[in-house]
Amino acid sequence: MQSSREAGSGKRTLHQSVYDVIIEGIQSRKWGERERLPSVRQLAEEMQVHRLTVLKAYQRLQDEGVVVSKYKSGYFVAPASQGTAGVNLKEQAWIYPAKSQYIHRSRLSDIHRIPVDYQMSEALINPNLLPNAFLSNHVKQVFDMYPRVLSTYSSVKGDPELREELTQYFMQKQGISLHPEELMITTGSQQAIDLISRALVKSGDTILIERPTYSPAIDVFVQQNVKLVPVEITPMGYDLNRLEQLMRDEKPSLFYMNPTFQNPTGYTVPVPQRKQLVELAERYACVLVEDEVYHDMYFGAMPPAPMFYYDTEGYVIHIRSFSKYVAPGLRISVLAARPEMMQAIVPVKALSDNGTPLLTQKIFQQYFFSSRLQNHVAKLRTALELRKEKMEALLAPTGWKWSSPGGGLNLWVQLPEPLSADALLQRCLQASVAFVPGRICDPLDAMDSWIRLSYSFIPEDRMEEGVGRLIAAAHREDIGWGI
Amino acid sequence: MQSSREAGSGKRTLHQSVYDVIIEGIQSRKWGERERLPSVRQLAEEMQVHRLTVLKAYQRLQDEGVVVSKYKSGYFVAPASQGTAGVNLKEQAWIYPAKSQYIHRSRLSDIHRIPVDYQMSEALINPNLLPNAFLSNHVKQVFDMYPRVLSTYSSVKGDPELREELTQYFMQKQGISLHPEELMITTGSQQAIDLISRALVKSGDTILIERPTYSPAIDVFVQQNVKLVPVEITPMGYDLNRLEQLMRDEKPSLFYMNPTFQNPTGYTVPVPQRKQLVELAERYACVLVEDEVYHDMYFGAMPPAPMFYYDTEGYVIHIRSFSKYVAPGLRISVLAARPEMMQAIVPVKALSDNGTPLLTQKIFQQYFFSSRLQNHVAKLRTALELRKEKMEALLAPTGWKWSSPGGGLNLWVQLPEPLSADALLQRCLQASVAFVPGRICDPLDAMDSWIRLSYSFIPEDRMEEGVGRLIAAAHREDIGWGI
Repeated sequence: MQSSREAGSGKRTLHQSVYDVIIEGIQSRKWGERERLPSVRQLAEEMQVHRLTVLKAYQRLQDEGVVVSKYKSGYFVAPASQGTAGVNLKEQAWIYPAKSQYIHRSRLSDIHRIPVDYQMSEALINPNLLPNAFLSNHVKQVFDMYPRVLSTYSSVKGDPELREELTQYFMQKQGISLHPEELMITTGSQQAIDLISRALVKSGDTILIERPTYSPAIDVFVQQNVKLVPVEITPMGYDLNRLEQLMRDEKPSLFYMNPTFQNPTGYTVPVPQRKQLVELAERYACVLVEDEVYHDMYFGAMPPAPMFYYDTEGYVIHIRSFSKYVAPGLRISVLAARPEMMQAIVPVKALSDNGTPLLTQKIFQQYFFSSRLQNHVAKLRTALELRKEKMEALLAPTGWKWSSPGGGLNLWVQLPEPLSADALLQRCLQASVAFVPGRICDPLDAMDSWIRLSYSFIPEDRMEEGVGRLIAAAHREDIGWGI
Repeated sequence: MQSSREAGSGKRTLHQSVYDVIIEGIQSRKWGERERLPSVRQLAEEMQVHRLTVLKAYQRLQDEGVVVSKYKSGYFVAPASQGTAGVNLKEQAWIYPAKSQYIHRSRLSDIHRIPVDYQMSEALINPNLLPNAFLSNHVKQVFDMYPRVLSTYSSVKGDPELREELTQYFMQKQGISLHPEELMITTGSQQAIDLISRALVKSGDTILIERPTYSPAIDVFVQQNVKLVPVEITPMGYDLNRLEQLMRDEKPSLFYMNPTFQNPTGYTVPVPQRKQLVELAERYACVLVEDEVYHDMYFGAMPPAPMFYYDTEGYVIHIRSFSKYVAPGLRISVLAARPEMMQAIVPVKALSDNGTPLLTQKIFQQYFFSSRLQNHVAKLRTALELRKEKMEALLAPTGWKWSSPGGGLNLWVQLPEPLSADALLQRCLQASVAFVPGRICDPLDAMDSWIRLSYSFIPEDRMEEGVGRLIAAAHREDIGWGI
């Protein structure tokens, strides 16, 4: 899916043709094992395509283990032992040894890198649903208003004007009182999680994490050498007695959670639990990191107030993704924390990148608070709800189980026994269909009978075919089918 | 200097007036110790200024220890023991205990946060020297060319088109052959250093670092719990015999260096040493991280080829700052590494922020390779050289010692005994003059008779007065003057 994530794409067919030509050449033994393949320039000239198109084809073939690249020498047909002309999902061994033990590879991105036609693994908004032209015009105004925006660094915490406007937004929309100094602008929520883990967690700490959860968060915490203790999440929230027991016995330093339209399940922690959770956090000195990534993507009723709203002692850190729904390319997220926490996080942000680029902050500030944009978000909610309903209708005949979410971008679906999500994925990738297998979202690396299907990114006119192929793959009898 | 680093500034005088009003109120005991100060809103209405202006004044007073803020309650006069109406440079204790032991505070930014009129501590280009209007026009074209640039994520390594163009640039300008997969776009060089330290260094490793060096690099490595071993740098480069001995005995995993117009000294490691260093790196399996931050800011002859040029075994990682000279607000830097290293760094970038925002990359790509921009860079070199010469002429009567740099943004000046740079800085800040004291750049925390003076950021018409005040402060007799 690499190509559709980049600007100026639409070269899908060309890139596929180049890919096919190389595959055919290898299968027909035109180029034998370990033999040098035509250079990018050469093939581009022969096929009359841009060199980037050839490069993309080679990169895909390299990802799939069909070709290998050698420095300064170009691309070669892979040795027969190394790969097949299929998809290779296995973890590649690190060549550089020093750090291999403790940098965990982001497993989700391995799946996203595989190009497919029916993309239900990316929990992203389809660009067709975004107000592209409107935004471009807005952006041009930013340069008139801030002629020096490109010559200027942001402060580490982020632009003070933007943070000031955000405090007003939080007050008006959620009744949350914040000082601008309690807000930090981060480059996406991913960075917020990473900063928090670096600032507040030390090696050997115990961390509570939902099961299942947002998989890159697992990667971030694993990297810090912590003990990850799972907390089961259900459509009714958590088992609070069990949670209190864990806090008492395990003395976790923090609990990373996704309490609203949870990723991947879509479950929402109910209000009474939210209040009790904050009390537990205070009692056991456990920081609650609430990643409110889908808060504004509700379908019917607005979701309950964030945990941050109930916090009086400063034990909750709130991560909010705003740009995701309007201009994901900006990568603007907000981290809200009371001064004591913030004071620990700021130096880590300074060391990480010394502040998010000012330009993207000013663009965000310019359009986000406009009524036009808020109208867009309302329309987007409707569009997403319709997509969700369509996918649910397509899945209805299967008898598979899921809990219909009140917001967010995903369905969390339980497959019937003995179907394995991993085996199903391998089969689906052959049919150009991608989704996220449950194991990736599970800190215990199990949940192999669950899958996450995103309805937000796949073009609407491909959804029927994509889900159809998924169901067909699940009904094939050859479960032992070998990759 | 906070205010001049932000867009839409120019409120210096207003902010200063508010600051003065509060200081006078405290001095006249209108507001006593621990007493509540007027709210931001109240003071803004009284003084008919924007609330941000009041906020800035309060923030400055807070930084200086004159006022304290309390969550949900506003600002209060600090207890007498806590601060004085002067500048307080002392490290503040962390309130949040968990991580205080091993997150090192970025010391340089403590100095930059102090607002002064004569700013010679920031090694930045003055925005007047940048082609602001030209860039704004260019940027508008980016949205026409890439209408979905705001809806699209970058890949983790950075936009493939930009990396492709950069390989051509490296080939044409430096004769360095690179594959786009060997390049990563980072959010500033700061992020590149941080990613490398996280990917390639583990707790307990030994790291070689120049003495003196770029101070945030010290902070990054200290955070990783490494043993920092200093390598003295002189106008003639390093003592290679000593360096080989260190590599043999200490078995460092990497050497962080700044070999061209070094920050802070301006020294350049000569060609023969570069070749030998690469051989040493290979022999002792020590990665050379060359941070070529000032490479393109040469005054006379072009600097020698980077170490990366001589590397055949993949032991050199090259960090290059490009946007710094043309649009620092974009925060675009490039990390070049051979595939083995790159493979270790990519997952850390994925966890850190999942890729630099696409927009800033596309803007950079759009203008950087234009001849107009390359002409700008040539003019900028001349402007900086003239500033350097002016500062040297102003310092000439003092008899202080420095080695005139062939490029870069700084003079590294040795003060006469017994003058202490720290004491001089305290005195200068009172006269609204800032520079970087040598101790901050020294991994051994000494070098108190050296200062770094940047000629790149101070408005040209303030340089004479600024240097004059610096010299006057150095000639005052009361060295024991107490803060």
